[in-house]
Amino acid sequence: MSARAGIVVTGTEVLTGRVQDLNGPWVADRLLELGVELAHITICGDRPGDIEAQLRFLADEGVDLIVTSGGLGPTADDMTVETVARFAGRKLVLDNRLEVMIADIVSRLMARFPNVDADAVHAANRKQALVPDGAHVIDPVGTAPGVVVPGKPTIVVLPGPPRELQPMWPIAVQTAAVQEAIAGRTAYRQETVRMFGLPESGLADTLRDAERSLTGFDRLEITTCLRRGELEVVARYEPDAAESYGELMTLLRERHGEAIFSEDGSRVDDQVARLLGGRRIATAESCTGGLLAARLTDLAGSSAYVAGAVVAYANDAKAGLLDVDPALIETHGAVSEPVAEAMADGALSRFGVDTAVAITGVAGPGGGTAEKPVGTVCFSVKLADGPAVTRTLRLPGNRADIRERSTTVAMHMLRRALS
Amino acid sequence: MSARAGIVVTGTEVLTGRVQDLNGPWVADRLLELGVELAHITICGDRPGDIEAQLRFLADEGVDLIVTSGGLGPTADDMTVETVARFAGRKLVLDNRLEVMIADIVSRLMARFPNVDADAVHAANRKQALVPDGAHVIDPVGTAPGVVVPGKPTIVVLPGPPRELQPMWPIAVQTAAVQEAIAGRTAYRQETVRMFGLPESGLADTLRDAERSLTGFDRLEITTCLRRGELEVVARYEPDAAESYGELMTLLRERHGEAIFSEDGSRVDDQVARLLGGRRIATAESCTGGLLAARLTDLAGSSAYVAGAVVAYANDAKAGLLDVDPALIETHGAVSEPVAEAMADGALSRFGVDTAVAITGVAGPGGGTAEKPVGTVCFSVKLADGPAVTRTLRLPGNRADIRERSTTVAMHMLRRALS
Repeated sequence: MSARAGIVVTGTEVLTGRVQDLNGPWVADRLLELGVELAHITICGDRPGDIEAQLRFLADEGVDLIVTSGGLGPTADDMTVETVARFAGRKLVLDNRLEVMIADIVSRLMARFPNVDADAVHAANRKQALVPDGAHVIDPVGTAPGVVVPGKPTIVVLPGPPRELQPMWPIAVQTAAVQEAIAGRTAYRQETVRMFGLPESGLADTLRDAERSLTGFDRLEITTCLRRGELEVVARYEPDAAESYGELMTLLRERHGEAIFSEDGSRVDDQVARLLGGRRIATAESCTGGLLAARLTDLAGSSAYVAGAVVAYANDAKAGLLDVDPALIETHGAVSEPVAEAMADGALSRFGVDTAVAITGVAGPGGGTAEKPVGTVCFSVKLADGPAVTRTLRLPGNRADIRERSTTVAMHMLRRALS
Repeated sequence: MSARAGIVVTGTEVLTGRVQDLNGPWVADRLLELGVELAHITICGDRPGDIEAQLRFLADEGVDLIVTSGGLGPTADDMTVETVARFAGRKLVLDNRLEVMIADIVSRLMARFPNVDADAVHAANRKQALVPDGAHVIDPVGTAPGVVVPGKPTIVVLPGPPRELQPMWPIAVQTAAVQEAIAGRTAYRQETVRMFGLPESGLADTLRDAERSLTGFDRLEITTCLRRGELEVVARYEPDAAESYGELMTLLRERHGEAIFSEDGSRVDDQVARLLGGRRIATAESCTGGLLAARLTDLAGSSAYVAGAVVAYANDAKAGLLDVDPALIETHGAVSEPVAEAMADGALSRFGVDTAVAITGVAGPGGGTAEKPVGTVCFSVKLADGPAVTRTLRLPGNRADIRERSTTVAMHMLRRALS
């Protein structure tokens, strides 16, 4: 027994690469968690013929479940529901409750746009209240409802915006039609280990050894991914292969204990947030331009420990707002460890906090020299009540990579300093 | 006449979302430039049955060209060439020139890994020198060669790493087989219009009117996309439909002239960068936590006009680093127009700049009140030599949406103030 699924991502903007598809990978993860095997993701534009061809293809491949994303908007080019209804041989019927609900949502939205003709807008949105006969309706999070159309395969139709699709997904999964379609799924366990400071080839080497030496290694489905400078190792296995996973973890701890920072899938951001409990932090940033402060404040509740940041992009801002001695910049250059330390000191004193991180570097593409090429970044972490750590790295990649990687390095330096 | 294509992306790490697919969008762009219509992108894991099913699907859909990426490595799970050969009814034959070439590349790579058994590696790589009989070989950029298999459809097989696939693509396009397959291509024009401050339904209404009233409207392939609070309208059409596009633009300008900020596809970020030429800007941010400064400095060369930012997340930082009178916060609250204005004034004077933007708001999920619910954000743009604009908005969505949307609103306020 098993359950197989396919994902149909619709939208000309996604097909042509103008918008990155976030729904395929997200739904793929959810299916994995459910123990449903994903066979295909297909992407097409807003053309009914192409959408229908993909539905037909997946049905012919014998999948039990199809999940579609996109094409539920009020504009004429959005026709996923209509296409799915035709494919499933069901008529479109007006759902009166839904029509009232959408009208209500739209009225509130329209209050912000007094010049738009409300009647015309209601007419456009009425289209969104048409659902395939016998389908289960998923109430809208934005303005577009989703539908679950029972059958072989069962088809789950969800809107394209991830912040609408994601909260609607668990409701779709709970419907009888989806539960029936995925009845054959296998319960898998999935574990995630995260490492920092280990090259991918080092891990590959260990995994090759594990393949030779570990009994039951072939029952672990392992994928590794290098992301933001961190290595993520995901293992998926049936419950009775847990012992093999335990042996793999023993090997990983032996070989790469220093690099492993998470065995439970927790992210460095959450770990740093926990470690900052009872403390106050400020950042002093040059090349990252505020990205580290933005990352720290990305988490709800961060106002409990984040005081703020100075982005000192210009040298006179380093002097004026962080009290960096201009002579220090003159002598060592703006990208130097003494300047990074002075920036961290400035953040400590200006914000009156006990924890500070400073970053100054060459993000490129210009500004590199033979001595300090693009990618050279100096970091300093200072604790009012503890040690200071300052280091210089050469980070790979383009401007965006270097800026983002810098925030990751800073998060790990913070984690170590506070642990 | 036209030419249609499909893209098959292979790789379990891509299907499961661990690695983001960069090849689909990249090849999609290249096909668009060539005037080849892309019908489908399909993604599957490293399973020959699923790859073959996708090839069959695209062939049945009548595409002229299939481009595959991935599955060309030396390991046993990489079997795209073998699968394509079987699908095309061609035998695999050893290409002697290719075998020597790959052996040479691999010898040089192996010099860095003295402990690896070179004979075993050569044996593994010999697999990569097997090509479908009669195929055109594309020499490797890494270690994996590509192949072009002539037929209906013609199949271009390329490796997965983008830095290998991308330089091999133009060579594949120049082969006689690909040129023949795409002989029916049409030169399309593509235009992008961007709007801000218009709901998607308002645009939908106008497009429905255009459909009724505009001659040749059906020859314009129009897609609309709501992103970061901006509406993007992309029109694709054959050159002789240019007049219809001109009429559509006249209608859009009449109805939504205020909202249109770009008719040439340029982004607000680039427009603001241009408008900031000769000026100096600083930001004062609370709820966005540095995101606006990070966005401004995302562009190379931004050090010419960005002085820096103060992220004043805590109230005492608003006072200490931006000179906001604590009494003002006491009277009006930290999220208020007077405080936003005082923050902008502080940024102007502290950084000695001529342009400042301040943002203070409730990003949530906590912190909302009846009077100032989550999503309430106050903005102030101040020019030392010109007007100040301050406004308060209620933005939809979750914490991340509100923070990101706030930076977009600030960019548009800057654009208008500087225009």
